[in-house]
Amino acid sequence: MDIADWRTKIDEIDRKLVEMLNLRAEAAQEIGRLKRVAEMPIYEPDRERAVLTQVQQANRGPLQHRHLLQIYERIMDVMRNVQKDEIVGTSEEPVASDTERDAEVQD
Amino acid sequence: MDIADWRTKIDEIDRKLVEMLNLRAEAAQEIGRLKRVAEMPIYEPDRERAVLTQVQQANRGPLQHRHLLQIYERIMDVMRNVQKDEIVGTSEEPVASDTERDAEVQD
Repeated sequence: MDIADWRTKIDEIDRKLVEMLNLRAEAAQEIGRLKRVAEMPIYEPDRERAVLTQVQQANRGPLQHRHLLQIYERIMDVMRNVQKDEIVGTSEEPVASDTERDAEVQD
Repeated sequence: MDIADWRTKIDEIDRKLVEMLNLRAEAAQEIGRLKRVAEMPIYEPDRERAVLTQVQQANRGPLQHRHLLQIYERIMDVMRNVQKDEIVGTSEEPVASDTERDAEVQD
């Protein structure tokens, strides 16, 4: 396989990753709704630690644990914001434009 | 579904995400090997822009584009490091221990 072939493979993987990340966001939203009703906090450090432990246990490489954790820390930051939007009721906000892509989320 | 059910679903999604991220890392390593032979640069801004455009096009929500891009910027940072390890020949480094998880990668 040459570089172009590997990139085609990466593009396929990316489409699946985008789909899985959206499924994860959907679940985070649902949990957000349930937390709103139950008046539970968004940030639950025990659950976050459990997620990171499971992710490490599922890791068969070649990604090193620290690399996977770097990615997961970002995924969980974003999911916490998705859940916050759900709880404070701003979930109907339209998808952001390209010009917003460099905006930092401060949580 | 209650919160525990949604978390079980998230755990399943995470196992698949870890698998897909590792497949992507594998492809990045292969590209790294080919780049080493061809003496090509690791950082290719045109390719990175193309990846981000495709990822946005594949996004059907509920993740907002800016959230997806925040995750992808981290994924691409990490993959660049994976590729760099491949090119400079440090890919045999063992997986990092838990104690390294907070280490920041400065590239």
